[in-house]
Amino acid sequence: MPSHYVLTLSCPDRPGIVNAVTGHLLRFEGNILDAQQYNDLETDRFFMRTVFALESGAIDALRDTFATLADGFGMRWSLRDRDVPRRVMLLASKFDHCLADVLYRWRIGELPMDITGVVSNHPRETYQYLGLDGIPFHYLPVTKGRKQEQEAQLLALIESTGTELVVLARYMQVLSESLATRLAGRCINIHHSFLPGFKGARPYHAAHARGVKLIGATAHFITADLDEGPIIEQDTQRVSHHDTPQDLIRIGRDIERRVLAQALRYWLDDRILLNGHRTVVFAV
Amino acid sequence: MPSHYVLTLSCPDRPGIVNAVTGHLLRFEGNILDAQQYNDLETDRFFMRTVFALESGAIDALRDTFATLADGFGMRWSLRDRDVPRRVMLLASKFDHCLADVLYRWRIGELPMDITGVVSNHPRETYQYLGLDGIPFHYLPVTKGRKQEQEAQLLALIESTGTELVVLARYMQVLSESLATRLAGRCINIHHSFLPGFKGARPYHAAHARGVKLIGATAHFITADLDEGPIIEQDTQRVSHHDTPQDLIRIGRDIERRVLAQALRYWLDDRILLNGHRTVVFAV
Amino acid sequence: MPSHYVLTLSCPDRPGIVNAVTGHLLRFEGNILDAQQYNDLETDRFFMRTVFALESGAIDALRDTFATLADGFGMRWSLRDRDVPRRVMLLASKFDHCLADVLYRWRIGELPMDITGVVSNHPRETYQYLGLDGIPFHYLPVTKGRKQEQEAQLLALIESTGTELVVLARYMQVLSESLATRLAGRCINIHHSFLPGFKGARPYHAAHARGVKLIGATAHFITADLDEGPIIEQDTQRVSHHDTPQDLIRIGRDIERRVLAQALRYWLDDRILLNGHRTVVFAV
Amino acid sequence: MPSHYVLTLSCPDRPGIVNAVTGHLLRFEGNILDAQQYNDLETDRFFMRTVFALESGAIDALRDTFATLADGFGMRWSLRDRDVPRRVMLLASKFDHCLADVLYRWRIGELPMDITGVVSNHPRETYQYLGLDGIPFHYLPVTKGRKQEQEAQLLALIESTGTELVVLARYMQVLSESLATRLAGRCINIHHSFLPGFKGARPYHAAHARGVKLIGATAHFITADLDEGPIIEQDTQRVSHHDTPQDLIRIGRDIERRVLAQALRYWLDDRILLNGHRTVVFAV
Repeated sequence: MPSHYVLTLSCPDRPGIVNAVTGHLLRFEGNILDAQQYNDLETDRFFMRTVFALESGAIDALRDTFATLADGFGMRWSLRDRDVPRRVMLLASKFDHCLADVLYRWRIGELPMDITGVVSNHPRETYQYLGLDGIPFHYLPVTKGRKQEQEAQLLALIESTGTELVVLARYMQVLSESLATRLAGRCINIHHSFLPGFKGARPYHAAHARGVKLIGATAHFITADLDEGPIIEQDTQRVSHHDTPQDLIRIGRDIERRVLAQALRYWLDDRILLNGHRTVVFAV
Repeated sequence: MPSHYVLTLSCPDRPGIVNAVTGHLLRFEGNILDAQQYNDLETDRFFMRTVFALESGAIDALRDTFATLADGFGMRWSLRDRDVPRRVMLLASKFDHCLADVLYRWRIGELPMDITGVVSNHPRETYQYLGLDGIPFHYLPVTKGRKQEQEAQLLALIESTGTELVVLARYMQVLSESLATRLAGRCINIHHSFLPGFKGARPYHAAHARGVKLIGATAHFITADLDEGPIIEQDTQRVSHHDTPQDLIRIGRDIERRVLAQALRYWLDDRILLNGHRTVVFAV
Repeated sequence: MPSHYVLTLSCPDRPGIVNAVTGHLLRFEGNILDAQQYNDLETDRFFMRTVFALESGAIDALRDTFATLADGFGMRWSLRDRDVPRRVMLLASKFDHCLADVLYRWRIGELPMDITGVVSNHPRETYQYLGLDGIPFHYLPVTKGRKQEQEAQLLALIESTGTELVVLARYMQVLSESLATRLAGRCINIHHSFLPGFKGARPYHAAHARGVKLIGATAHFITADLDEGPIIEQDTQRVSHHDTPQDLIRIGRDIERRVLAQALRYWLDDRILLNGHRTVVFAV
Repeated sequence: MPSHYVLTLSCPDRPGIVNAVTGHLLRFEGNILDAQQYNDLETDRFFMRTVFALESGAIDALRDTFATLADGFGMRWSLRDRDVPRRVMLLASKFDHCLADVLYRWRIGELPMDITGVVSNHPRETYQYLGLDGIPFHYLPVTKGRKQEQEAQLLALIESTGTELVVLARYMQVLSESLATRLAGRCINIHHSFLPGFKGARPYHAAHARGVKLIGATAHFITADLDEGPIIEQDTQRVSHHDTPQDLIRIGRDIERRVLAQALRYWLDDRILLNGHRTVVFAV
């Protein structure tokens, strides 16, 4: 009975990579179901994602021998069983539209993952209509002068639960440089503007003041450099002079939850590869 | 035989404005064909645009008496015969996609205006395939140390031709503060980014370097403060990691010409009113 | 202390309508906050929506005298206190993404209305994660041969609860011609295709079979003529050859809930006027 | 000195295809620059597009030996030198916005092709502002009772000029079943509606009558079955009750030229593969 695996890799470009990889899969009788490649001609770096079917018993041997091949090409790579759900922690705050949306999509099977917990600086009752039953909830308030302590608790939770991805679903707290660095590459934030426009706080008020005719949202990996992390997904929507900052906030909620859900879906499907401070997203 | 007129106005908000205006039109047997209003609750300012039909002979009397009414409300206003085409000058440079697009739309009747001239810092032959026959062309090269002189020639042209609007159709020259100030409110520029992101030169290269997932363009009025003028129209389009800066430039051409044409159409149709450093655009 | 009212009307076009209406409001010291007009030159019919502030005590007198004015112009009109929430009933089925979305938006105040009940042909447990606490729920299964009986119960519910609008939030049941006729103009359906393409059942499978490059959704008023009612709102999204019918269903969920919520928001805000078998939607 | 080639193929899916193809390229020291694959799980058919660099002298040997490999897999395939421009004929009528747009893009290098001719049922003067200098023009009027004769002339032109693709740039003439069949797979039409909605003539009037809130355009291959050919590209744009049929025609021009240019670009870049009566479009 075959299982499905997804292999992602990047390495310096040179002839023969695809042939070597597909030859390796073939040797173990793996059957490729989907594949994307990309050559970044600017950096001369090669990126690949392959989904393949394989008799479950053969994966360990394939993985072990692939390591040797990967070394030869200088690959950064990952090989994952698609039937093992990823472990994701959701951080939220008062505005819970992104949290509610992710939970709903997860519940109907649109986002295949294990939720290792919902963490908030607001108590559980805040989310009484979101159907949190059965999901671990952690109330970690951020109080003056004790942010370091709160972040230590958060990090302990992340580690003890085997969390692979942290999602800042409008968490509204700036992570310390130390925590941001620690979570680099495994923490996605939704920023409520079309970056790099309107960095920082209150972007909808800033957008209104500037009189823009479209607003947007950006899902990006967190780095120590605030609002500068690698962008995963963005979208925009038309607004007009009629729209007050409150209208922009309302319209923005729709963009935010759509963009975050898309980014999360890409991540769960191993479609995002880092390319320096940018991303390669194999969208289809 | 009735003519069509368009009345635009803005003034401090207070009860009775619409009633007074419509009453005035009614007194002259004007028939309203289209009307838009907007109250800016933030600044308590009122904006209105009305298209009406009127026996041609009556317009002078209507206008004279309206002036008194307008004074009473503290209005900034404009009353224009729609059958008198606006006078527009087009400034272009080496990249002629916006120029070509505006000329095509003008020729098939989509942009009803009189073109008072095409001005370029490149010679006429540059545009040999654009069908410039019958359109005054002015070759005004910008040479080192003589920008002031060139701008003086340009301004003389604008004034002598009775130009009402100057369109910077990818003109690629930064106007001096003095000229920008002089043309404030009657000069539209197309900027090749989704402002306020990527101000300044080479925005597509900057967008590529930042790894954004959408690019855009912005049509705005020119002010002395570069890239900070009131925004009229913007649009964006999806791009991906595959797209090189050259691809972004190609994709951007489509956005630029679409956004500029839309802004120009709004202007010709008296749909744009200034609201401080923002615009009210009565789009429909 | 002033209240806010919204007046909508349509009538045969003729000079003086706006002046008469604004004059009437002025007489009662009503202050116009927002206004839209539209002349349909094809049918020579005039449409208007006005939001105004008025001392609460004055509304009855204003309404009574307006009736006379309205008769003179042959108006169909409605005058509503914005502080009195509309009464809306939600009909759902197994697929609950539209229901969940409407409930969430209602809960955070985005859709100001009273929910008179949720009706489904599936039992209450189906929606256990949607936070139905405090909302009347009615399980009205549709069983073979008893559709007429079920519809009678439904209609009784609609009438006894003073429901003003029925929302078919992916209800998945075709209303009988008799019920559809009865609810004409006060029942909104979300159809999971970009009408008039792909009428009828399984539109995503039909879209996939045809190989379209965009899919869409349509919110429309129900009429006896299936999938032919007046369209209120539509939207589309890009898909590709990679997308299976299941992918289209997933992508479609996002479009459906967005389009339905927009249509409902327009309705609650009295922005939709019927114009024969089409709609006038004063979107801004 | 290496040249760039593009190889496209489709065949029944089975393990080893990518490995065999990449192995073959590797044997001739071809270097893959870009590659896309797609498995249609419904039909179990595999599609692939590969761009590679190769020393020019090696291409004939590579091609000859590839034929054997291709036979083994039952491939339909094409191998093309990217430096040899494709030969394209443009058919136009009175509405010349698509023709003007394609010509402009071709002139600035956006659409690398040889134009084998412009054919119209209107005389050359019709297009005097489009800069046709140097492009063969053929005036082939369609007159009553002589359509068969006109089509024979057209077909002779297509054949004698070695035309690989015929573009119906709003040609406004329905090809006979015989000619449509003859040109199947090598003739692209732009239809001015979002198919399958509003087939046939006057789609913008039909869209207006139905009151849709978006209009669209569709680029598709021509088949004997009118408006039913494989869809290549589509797009839509928002309209409102304000828009008359004339407005829809104006807005539609922008969609049509954008959609047609995109489809043509895909074709010139060998990104479109037929999959029954649908297409696989390797868009990036």
